[in-house]
Amino acid sequence: MFESLFVPEELLAATSDDAFVGAMVEAEVALALAQGRELDARVRIDTRMIMREGRAVANPAEPLVRRLRELDPQAHEGATSQDIVDTAMMLVAKRSRELILGHADAVAATCAKLADEHRGTVMAARTLLQQAVPTTFGLKAAVWLSGVVEARRRLAAVELAAQLGGAAGTLASFGERGPEMLRRFAEELGLAEPPLPWHANRMRVAELVDALALVAGACGKIAFDVILLAQTEVAEVTVPTGGSTAMAHKRNPASAVVAVAAARQLTPRIDVLGEHERAAGAWQAEWPVVTHALAYSGAAAAATRETLAGLEVDADRMRANMSPELAGYPPAGDAFVDRALERYGRL
Amino acid sequence: MFESLFVPEELLAATSDDAFVGAMVEAEVALALAQGRELDARVRIDTRMIMREGRAVANPAEPLVRRLRELDPQAHEGATSQDIVDTAMMLVAKRSRELILGHADAVAATCAKLADEHRGTVMAARTLLQQAVPTTFGLKAAVWLSGVVEARRRLAAVELAAQLGGAAGTLASFGERGPEMLRRFAEELGLAEPPLPWHANRMRVAELVDALALVAGACGKIAFDVILLAQTEVAEVTVPTGGSTAMAHKRNPASAVVAVAAARQLTPRIDVLGEHERAAGAWQAEWPVVTHALAYSGAAAAATRETLAGLEVDADRMRANMSPELAGYPPAGDAFVDRALERYGRL
Amino acid sequence: MFESLFVPEELLAATSDDAFVGAMVEAEVALALAQGRELDARVRIDTRMIMREGRAVANPAEPLVRRLRELDPQAHEGATSQDIVDTAMMLVAKRSRELILGHADAVAATCAKLADEHRGTVMAARTLLQQAVPTTFGLKAAVWLSGVVEARRRLAAVELAAQLGGAAGTLASFGERGPEMLRRFAEELGLAEPPLPWHANRMRVAELVDALALVAGACGKIAFDVILLAQTEVAEVTVPTGGSTAMAHKRNPASAVVAVAAARQLTPRIDVLGEHERAAGAWQAEWPVVTHALAYSGAAAAATRETLAGLEVDADRMRANMSPELAGYPPAGDAFVDRALERYGRL
Amino acid sequence: MFESLFVPEELLAATSDDAFVGAMVEAEVALALAQGRELDARVRIDTRMIMREGRAVANPAEPLVRRLRELDPQAHEGATSQDIVDTAMMLVAKRSRELILGHADAVAATCAKLADEHRGTVMAARTLLQQAVPTTFGLKAAVWLSGVVEARRRLAAVELAAQLGGAAGTLASFGERGPEMLRRFAEELGLAEPPLPWHANRMRVAELVDALALVAGACGKIAFDVILLAQTEVAEVTVPTGGSTAMAHKRNPASAVVAVAAARQLTPRIDVLGEHERAAGAWQAEWPVVTHALAYSGAAAAATRETLAGLEVDADRMRANMSPELAGYPPAGDAFVDRALERYGRL
Repeated sequence: MFESLFVPEELLAATSDDAFVGAMVEAEVALALAQGRELDARVRIDTRMIMREGRAVANPAEPLVRRLRELDPQAHEGATSQDIVDTAMMLVAKRSRELILGHADAVAATCAKLADEHRGTVMAARTLLQQAVPTTFGLKAAVWLSGVVEARRRLAAVELAAQLGGAAGTLASFGERGPEMLRRFAEELGLAEPPLPWHANRMRVAELVDALALVAGACGKIAFDVILLAQTEVAEVTVPTGGSTAMAHKRNPASAVVAVAAARQLTPRIDVLGEHERAAGAWQAEWPVVTHALAYSGAAAAATRETLAGLEVDADRMRANMSPELAGYPPAGDAFVDRALERYGRL
Repeated sequence: MFESLFVPEELLAATSDDAFVGAMVEAEVALALAQGRELDARVRIDTRMIMREGRAVANPAEPLVRRLRELDPQAHEGATSQDIVDTAMMLVAKRSRELILGHADAVAATCAKLADEHRGTVMAARTLLQQAVPTTFGLKAAVWLSGVVEARRRLAAVELAAQLGGAAGTLASFGERGPEMLRRFAEELGLAEPPLPWHANRMRVAELVDALALVAGACGKIAFDVILLAQTEVAEVTVPTGGSTAMAHKRNPASAVVAVAAARQLTPRIDVLGEHERAAGAWQAEWPVVTHALAYSGAAAAATRETLAGLEVDADRMRANMSPELAGYPPAGDAFVDRALERYGRL
Repeated sequence: MFESLFVPEELLAATSDDAFVGAMVEAEVALALAQGRELDARVRIDTRMIMREGRAVANPAEPLVRRLRELDPQAHEGATSQDIVDTAMMLVAKRSRELILGHADAVAATCAKLADEHRGTVMAARTLLQQAVPTTFGLKAAVWLSGVVEARRRLAAVELAAQLGGAAGTLASFGERGPEMLRRFAEELGLAEPPLPWHANRMRVAELVDALALVAGACGKIAFDVILLAQTEVAEVTVPTGGSTAMAHKRNPASAVVAVAAARQLTPRIDVLGEHERAAGAWQAEWPVVTHALAYSGAAAAATRETLAGLEVDADRMRANMSPELAGYPPAGDAFVDRALERYGRL
Repeated sequence: MFESLFVPEELLAATSDDAFVGAMVEAEVALALAQGRELDARVRIDTRMIMREGRAVANPAEPLVRRLRELDPQAHEGATSQDIVDTAMMLVAKRSRELILGHADAVAATCAKLADEHRGTVMAARTLLQQAVPTTFGLKAAVWLSGVVEARRRLAAVELAAQLGGAAGTLASFGERGPEMLRRFAEELGLAEPPLPWHANRMRVAELVDALALVAGACGKIAFDVILLAQTEVAEVTVPTGGSTAMAHKRNPASAVVAVAAARQLTPRIDVLGEHERAAGAWQAEWPVVTHALAYSGAAAAATRETLAGLEVDADRMRANMSPELAGYPPAGDAFVDRALERYGRL
């Protein structure tokens, strides 16, 4: 669905279903290694088949696990599908992030070079798409630079962690060894070790996607400024152009257009693509958005606070509600509760 | 528009137009102080009037500046409207953030207490809204805790900085003293000093709104889990309830509903409100979203890289394009270019 | 939170909490009239107090109903809070829509006039912000006209209907007279009569908000084109301007900026604000969005189809699950099932 | 990127890049036929290659047109890339819509059957996830039916029209025959004939995506209700289930989960997935959204009205601004202005 029109080949591969299924296999191999076993994963895997079968169970790990268990009945022991899927997603994110940071850093390097070289290149600053006062193209590039570097730092800082929780995040089937298994599993994969299973805490995924939108936005802002500078009537820069099928004279700023269209796929809450030195509409649109976000974020926190303040727990009912099938499974131990209190109990 | 149904009084005041207009006045006072002058700001300000007049100029600072200049002709010297508006927004954000963090921290403290007290309270873990294996309510609360603390840390880490750039971000009217003015201005207001004017780099605003959505989401996740536990057929917790106008027996989980509704105002890209130990739909919905975000973020970066790689700057045209009116204004100096290269030139 | 900076006075009043609370009172009065009674609604209502008390019950109707019942114990009989809130929202929407259509129609009328007068005014068409071939300003205005009229027709076509379902959408407390009550209630209020209660079918609300975004987008597109035409270097149109606080010569296209900022509050899925005759990025961004929407919309429908195809209903369990408190309430009758089959059973 | 996990095979094909490129070829063939010529389109087309080359020009039509012109130099005559891309998208939408409506109609048919069969099946209605009063499963299914039919009617009503405008929407290269060419082109393709070229009026694309989100939402609402009814503690329905990789006893409502996850890809402005008879949070979240949408939609319209009311057109500058290259192209004629006035000039 148009990915290959926008996404460079290498990144297309890194975010493909093939890459994802491969990462699931790596996660299963690491899971076995963490338990001191080797997994025979010589299975031939047809990604499309995995996905198609996965549709019937809403779960791409299930068809893979079935195949692996045919080779090795101990495969997947101690894990649940979400462990494999979430961990594979983090591996995909880690590798894709390398590529994205590579592009962003190249953008930053060019911005730095432009800032340095053009510190004396005087031009009109434009606010609300009207000429304002003189600035330099060097300062303009320096502002671009600040945006793209802030965004890439945010992206680089997102903790990409392994996920291992077992059937429901307790790792109870490993008994006391749960936290140790989690540590080893993360280590094998080169992912961060999370303080506790995060399958029910989606913060890091949300942060990742937010940071990706920042990078896209910082780049898209540059590209849109370039498009504006390249307007026929302005013509202060020229860029790599694509021809028109209808007009011989047209010089379309093709790669800048690709950048803007790609950035728009990420629907940032704050549009960072504003024009030149002051956007005509995008900046003003922030005011209600920010106060609104402040008000409702606090509203959610305040109402949750009240909810918890009045919460009464019925431990008997909790026990009574458990289906008989659950009797055979060990209950969760304290290890992760302690870790949560230690790492998160003080702010 | 329903804010008072969701937002607590104190936060409602902190995010109100009155608070914003008051913050604009503070910014103007600090601007004068940074230049060694005192601003007479005894003007009676009618917020509604400021906003109404602001509508005609798409700018709430303009009617305020007009009034201040009647009192003191030097008011606003060296600044542009966006400096005052952006800085005021940061002041509003700073004060609102304190309130939000207060609520979030109370949520975290209760979660920590529940985690500690209920480490032995066994209950059914529920994935895809089906009972899975036993867990404890303590571990459930510990996972809630991890989410809300991660979110509040993200929010607390957002740099809220003063903005001062003059007519178009060059601070040229201060000559050499531009960076010094920016430092003093930020100091007066207790805001961070940014490395360079950020009026055309909206990263920090986007990060703020992203972080607010995380806090709202982390809290909303807790509230929705509580609603699910309080279902008539589950009844494992009871919460502060609101009566029904139609049914005497109904016990609606009112504050939890307020929390969820408030959190939904922030439309997170990743829905962190998933049910219990595994969400039936929200988790699975992440997979295309994340790969999509990875692919298009990189696509934007790659295309911007290409755009810049082929960029040719026409310095002559830049100069020639400048309107005659711009002749009287000093061009931008090098100071901010140097700071950008220093702070952002290496990654 | 900035509404008064963007929203005209009359519309601000029509969408205010006061208007909403007033509409709730009207709904209660109509409910009584539909049952052949008159409701004494001379109560003094403090909107802020209603909202504040409503926060405790997640429900703005509850504090109002309490007050009305003091005056008249039969008040609210047969209804639930959602009936009053949803119906009040439709009344608010109906009156606000009148105002919005008034503005949109004035926009359309001016576009029509410009199209007619400037059919001979030759100008450059601009695609991807590059000059393409000659067009006329008349044709440009005609395209604006087509957008704004299509959007306003969509908005005008949204069915704004009364909602009356009783405690849970069955209207069971009215026995056989349920459908008749619904008809009379709608008639009293001048709202459409829905074929069945829609409290659990939010389609019309979603359609309303979609249509509002279309109107905002169609208008914002015009305003952004105007901003582009008014650029210093293009200067083909002039517009009502707001002064700058920093630069005497600046002529900011203030009302066009307000239009764009307002339109951006509605985050359309498809950005209809693209520049001139071909947008540089917004158009290209549609391709993955549309195919994505086609694919996932069908995916949702296909998976729901499978879900229902395999659905087995356990009528005994349904009955057994009912809490004892429900015993005193009459079950739902067939009337609405028949109406649904009649109106929706054939496509 | 996970499409094959969610999207059925046939729809996956219909929304694929292959389908899109094939539709572009059909558009080129129809363009030739409309002009009384036959296009030799026996070219072997490698979709991936087209997209990859298209990336360099931000335009998938350009590499195709190059290949077609090698076979037939008159190929693409009178058209611009956007004509081919927009028209191809409408063809893709038309065929995909057939499939989507097929699924939606099957959903509706099952809902109708359930409504009819279960009109006497009494169960608890649940508002805010608390039991309210008795209802019937038949009425519940009838409400589902009303939602899915309203959504599919909206989708079916979207006008999918051919786009033909030439280089910049004037069809000037056809002279007087422009409107006739547009009519024939649309007829050849079985698409609607638009009153005027719509390349710069994106309303129909926005409407299409809005309607797709409605269908996804209406289906997702059903699926989520089913998930809630299938909860272990409720167990009123059973559905086709997928096994768990970790727990033998788990019965995951797999296809319903796929439906919800798919629906969530469309980020509706109004969340129509609310739980049972009254959603705990989603419904309440509508109130600020709707008033906000009403206010800002009107704000956009009002500000655009003001913008246009004060607009002054500088016809001389328009002419003077035209680049010399444009001199060779005929200006736009009146035909489309007249059609716009006729079809849209009165509301």
